[in-house]
Amino acid sequence: MRMSEVTLVLGGARSGKSRHAEQIVERLDSPWAYLATAQAFDAEMEARIALHRARRSESWRTYDAPLDLAGTLDALPPDMPALVDCLTLWLTNHLLAEHDLEAEAARLIAAVLRRSAPVVLVANEVGLGIVPDNALARRFRDAAGRLNQDLAAKADRVVFLVAGLPMVFKDTVVKDR
Amino acid sequence: MRMSEVTLVLGGARSGKSRHAEQIVERLDSPWAYLATAQAFDAEMEARIALHRARRSESWRTYDAPLDLAGTLDALPPDMPALVDCLTLWLTNHLLAEHDLEAEAARLIAAVLRRSAPVVLVANEVGLGIVPDNALARRFRDAAGRLNQDLAAKADRVVFLVAGLPMVFKDTVVKDR
Amino acid sequence: MRMSEVTLVLGGARSGKSRHAEQIVERLDSPWAYLATAQAFDAEMEARIALHRARRSESWRTYDAPLDLAGTLDALPPDMPALVDCLTLWLTNHLLAEHDLEAEAARLIAAVLRRSAPVVLVANEVGLGIVPDNALARRFRDAAGRLNQDLAAKADRVVFLVAGLPMVFKDTVVKDR
Repeated sequence: MRMSEVTLVLGGARSGKSRHAEQIVERLDSPWAYLATAQAFDAEMEARIALHRARRSESWRTYDAPLDLAGTLDALPPDMPALVDCLTLWLTNHLLAEHDLEAEAARLIAAVLRRSAPVVLVANEVGLGIVPDNALARRFRDAAGRLNQDLAAKADRVVFLVAGLPMVFKDTVVKDR
Repeated sequence: MRMSEVTLVLGGARSGKSRHAEQIVERLDSPWAYLATAQAFDAEMEARIALHRARRSESWRTYDAPLDLAGTLDALPPDMPALVDCLTLWLTNHLLAEHDLEAEAARLIAAVLRRSAPVVLVANEVGLGIVPDNALARRFRDAAGRLNQDLAAKADRVVFLVAGLPMVFKDTVVKDR
Repeated sequence: MRMSEVTLVLGGARSGKSRHAEQIVERLDSPWAYLATAQAFDAEMEARIALHRARRSESWRTYDAPLDLAGTLDALPPDMPALVDCLTLWLTNHLLAEHDLEAEAARLIAAVLRRSAPVVLVANEVGLGIVPDNALARRFRDAAGRLNQDLAAKADRVVFLVAGLPMVFKDTVVKDR
């Protein structure tokens, strides 16, 4: 894996995205940065966050970044591999804060591409069901799809997970291995 | 690409289906037919249609075909490549008009196969979420899935897009290239 | 295909999962066991069950197993290939009966792995839409995703269907063919 590699890990709910992303980072030299975007609004979320945290080894440094992923990435040690989990919650946080989603997405992508160490980003694919009834859900679905497309266009590798199994949709570095 | 090639472009919302389909057609000799099935019922739809239209070059001839795709395809110049965008809206239009969906699907597929120029069809995959609460949405989901299956069985190529990236699910013409 | 092969067939609604799974089993020596998990609560379900049943040849032996898949698998003749259609309904049945979903999943997987004849299991992928509004749907989505992951980890082959077309996500026996 070359230093600046960017990997986007896509998949549905409970598709094993986080675990897969962690395994990619854990093959690199530690310590690793874990950029957590989840905010615990209720008991359901709290339990989910605790479960994810308990699974990770002590070589992970956790940074809470519900909104400022770009700033958090910029402030990391330059050679520290980073995992962002997950973009879909981060986008939700910005949507609820009524921020400009396109500007935030552009700012994030620029920060990811500035890194000299590998970055792995986890995002949900949410556009494969029936059109949602409510307008906010549709707006979110559109923004999430656009963010995934923009990141996928810049990423070195894109994998799509189904039932814990990855399918490689893009790999520009496969020859380096 | 041989003359009569039929390509089905599947994917979720905001997965880059339209853009991918346009790029397939734009490699062929122009002019190209754009068969638009969208009807602007509200401002959200109008904005989306305008955005799609603004992206297309002047070599596209736009035909509005919210219901009669078969007739519109039959009336095109025989050697004009055609893009149908999208089947999911077309099916919705027929569902709301209380037409016989299976008969309409069969009529469409026959017209597609009658073309001597390439046809690229865009359709949404809508069956990968939780079962919808309301019966109409379930009926639509079933009809959309059946239409996609029937077309995929007849198509020369079927691609599934995730985050703007295509995964080839079927390609019977790969040797011709 | 070696005797104990386990195949997991994943896909969305109306993606051709059942037909694909039947075709896998029908290449093996008959008779074949069809383990049906569907319970007809209403006319819509009854019509769907009847349609599936009418499509199957007489070499199929149908076993109704809305809850006890493990016991039904254990009771089959040891050399009889089995098709389980589908796990998503089976999980729904256990959810509605307020059973321990993790315990039931573990019991099922153990029974599948005890078989000396091939087993093909059909399951829906339901996690690729917007987060459902209601908590029960979210709980179900999580349980279904975990079951699919656990089975996929143990299966010899995992295929994901889109529009009737299979994409192989895992195949540990491809060299035996």
